[in-house]
Amino acid sequence: MEGLWFTEIHGKSSGITIKVKDVLKCVKTKFQTLKVYDTEDYGKLLTLDDIVMTTEKDEFIYHEMIVHVPLFSHENPENVLIIGGGDGGTLREVLKHKTVKNVDMVEIDEEVVNTSKEFFPNFAKAFESPKANVIFDDGIEFVKNKKAKYDVVIVDSTDPINVGEGLFTTDFYKNCYNILKENGILTNQSESPFHSPEWVRSIYEKLNRAFPIVKMYRAEVPTYPPGIWSFGFCSKVTYPVENFQKNRFNEYKLKLKYYNEEIHKAAFALPNFVKELI
Amino acid sequence: MEGLWFTEIHGKSSGITIKVKDVLKCVKTKFQTLKVYDTEDYGKLLTLDDIVMTTEKDEFIYHEMIVHVPLFSHENPENVLIIGGGDGGTLREVLKHKTVKNVDMVEIDEEVVNTSKEFFPNFAKAFESPKANVIFDDGIEFVKNKKAKYDVVIVDSTDPINVGEGLFTTDFYKNCYNILKENGILTNQSESPFHSPEWVRSIYEKLNRAFPIVKMYRAEVPTYPPGIWSFGFCSKVTYPVENFQKNRFNEYKLKLKYYNEEIHKAAFALPNFVKELI
Repeated sequence: MEGLWFTEIHGKSSGITIKVKDVLKCVKTKFQTLKVYDTEDYGKLLTLDDIVMTTEKDEFIYHEMIVHVPLFSHENPENVLIIGGGDGGTLREVLKHKTVKNVDMVEIDEEVVNTSKEFFPNFAKAFESPKANVIFDDGIEFVKNKKAKYDVVIVDSTDPINVGEGLFTTDFYKNCYNILKENGILTNQSESPFHSPEWVRSIYEKLNRAFPIVKMYRAEVPTYPPGIWSFGFCSKVTYPVENFQKNRFNEYKLKLKYYNEEIHKAAFALPNFVKELI
Repeated sequence: MEGLWFTEIHGKSSGITIKVKDVLKCVKTKFQTLKVYDTEDYGKLLTLDDIVMTTEKDEFIYHEMIVHVPLFSHENPENVLIIGGGDGGTLREVLKHKTVKNVDMVEIDEEVVNTSKEFFPNFAKAFESPKANVIFDDGIEFVKNKKAKYDVVIVDSTDPINVGEGLFTTDFYKNCYNILKENGILTNQSESPFHSPEWVRSIYEKLNRAFPIVKMYRAEVPTYPPGIWSFGFCSKVTYPVENFQKNRFNEYKLKLKYYNEEIHKAAFALPNFVKELI
């Protein structure tokens, strides 16, 4: 194990380790420390405060799942809000839906977007869309006192510590509820039930205080804490499996690497130890 | 990161790392190097040739999935064969099925069973069952020229290298086919589609040469190469989802931590990149 290795510890004392070919960027932004590495196994790797945000090789799993599950559960998603998601991967997937007319993306840290444009062209091309409206602001403030205008809100945040902490509160979730139209849907990344059960329990308690319908779905993200990665699906009236938009899904013929109709439904089946948690 | 760390590299140059509290056993057996570590995050950890076989904390996922999917797909599993599985975890799960009258477990390395009895009492209690018949032999030889007597064969092996290699050949799979009764089922661990796509492609090509019905199902095993872990489900006539034995499942009321009816079905939904592989 010679050379430079990036190691992220999950739990108390275990984690992942990835050999680094080169350090491409290392900068302290106004909000966090941002680094970009080039790696052999995962291509380019973006970290914030030394936590993996995304890698070129496995990003498709997270981005496809946080986007297509809510958008193919909604009859006609036109106006979408992304909180966070500064790398542009979530925006890229949202823009694959022809129904979408406008996407507001509220990212607190402009440097994340700049970094994406510099090193992740496969993500950053989404910023060029005339439908994309990038706003550099605090998502917590942005959702306050807005009228109900969005069809889907996607919270693509860091972990519930440091800069991301305020995106995991009951107040924030209630404000998200309020800016959603009557058949609106929210999804968020909701951490690892295996490695962070306390976080997961707390997130779902709070989501349940804000939304009448709260479900968890899951995927496997190799560079996140291992085992299941979970996503919250919250809505005012919509059940995700029953409301799968088969016609639109078939019409679009998207070339996706992870998501499909069976995955949309199967993702909501949860192991017993996860069910007991939420 | 001070102290002793166990690191297993997957892919070219990435992997998992786990802090070790103590080295409990380190021995060269006739077939491989066996080590037992005590760890903070995963409890006791067993390695063979420095590859993680199982840990106390996450073993339930692998063992429940390799056993209950085939056994709850079979109308009346009475006679079961386990190839490998020397730690006893697979045997323990098989014995939870009241229909089972006999389990032959063929393990090549007696030292694995001895180690389980010494350090993994939660696994090794299964060896005390009068239904369990432990045979120390080479699984490849054992399945040759036997008559069709088993309802279910479970291949709980190491990777397709070194001592495990012969358990991933077309000849071996054909011999397994021959020792299964007319409605027999085989499951095996079939590696990580994300990290070892070549292995997975090769395994399924060979399984398809031996069995008319071949499906893949999946689970997330934190201490195996990250992302999806896959299992092969092969049978002469049985489709696993359609043939789920709901009555027996409901009757047993097993206290399981991972497997349930929804998981049984959802596990067969595969991401696009996995479908393209097999």
